[in-house]
Amino acid sequence: MKHLVEKTIESEKIFNGRVIDLYHEKVELPNGKTSTREIIKHPGAVAIIALTEDHKMVMVKQYRKAMERLLVEIPAGKLEKGEEPIETAKRELEEETGYTTDQLQHIISFYTSPGFADELVHVYLATDLKVMETKAELDEDEFVEVMELTIDEALELIRTKEIYDAKTAYAVQYLQLRSALGE
Amino acid sequence: MKHLVEKTIESEKIFNGRVIDLYHEKVELPNGKTSTREIIKHPGAVAIIALTEDHKMVMVKQYRKAMERLLVEIPAGKLEKGEEPIETAKRELEEETGYTTDQLQHIISFYTSPGFADELVHVYLATDLKVMETKAELDEDEFVEVMELTIDEALELIRTKEIYDAKTAYAVQYLQLRSALGE
Repeated sequence: MKHLVEKTIESEKIFNGRVIDLYHEKVELPNGKTSTREIIKHPGAVAIIALTEDHKMVMVKQYRKAMERLLVEIPAGKLEKGEEPIETAKRELEEETGYTTDQLQHIISFYTSPGFADELVHVYLATDLKVMETKAELDEDEFVEVMELTIDEALELIRTKEIYDAKTAYAVQYLQLRSALGE
Repeated sequence: MKHLVEKTIESEKIFNGRVIDLYHEKVELPNGKTSTREIIKHPGAVAIIALTEDHKMVMVKQYRKAMERLLVEIPAGKLEKGEEPIETAKRELEEETGYTTDQLQHIISFYTSPGFADELVHVYLATDLKVMETKAELDEDEFVEVMELTIDEALELIRTKEIYDAKTAYAVQYLQLRSALGE
């Protein structure tokens, strides 16, 4: 695969953030010429397809500053240092929805924007949800509204673009596929 | 929804790139406190689920510098200034795969990383593919290898993590669902 690989000539760290770091790199292309790459480093994240007993998806509505708008998404959050993705999934489920569970099953992991970022999202299916007696606390800069949606309601929110992100679109389609397969 | 909205207090442009721009913002939270947001602005992109006559998915293998590895993905590319997404889809299909078509159907659009980026990907289904007599040229810093995979082969590459990104995982699941529904 050597004919496709890019080699780093120089790498400059432009920004060191709370969530992301930005690097500007000079690379040698497979044909020997040079180009530049703009690269975001991200700690990785989890997302949770949380199903209630009556087969509703637990979702959170929150403001997303990058788009300056509200989005309805499946619960998700960044990995903390040293945390296993399944622990992050349980913690984020508790913090964002007030539910907890020991039934977390890894479904898939994927890079969200491989053209410029290394963010890897681990997707879990959470079942056997229990309401927490004492609600876990959100991060102090996080504000969300919890919703519970049938698949049909979620599909309607995809149509109206209230649900409008890749992981949530994947999650809804995942449940459609399970249902179509009679699972 | 006012109780969820964040207001911009200050916005500083940290980096102005070829592909992405980075902003560092100070925001007022719904509770009146302040926090910071790190935001990537991206021009948007398209991705193409391209199906051959014998129901194979056309994919491209390419080096992704952010992960320092090869990934197998559905064809995709950034919107050029003033370009309609459907034109971008046709152009990227031609440049990356050597196929062309007039049958491009919009399937869904989604934000890839709403927590820190405004990248919106428009997904198209391309059918009635024709081999181009004169192959369109790739961007001068792009090197790809074209593959044609059955759904089962694509699922195997998801298992081995050669396919490892959200839009391609969505695309494979989309075809699984169509098949399960007998479409």
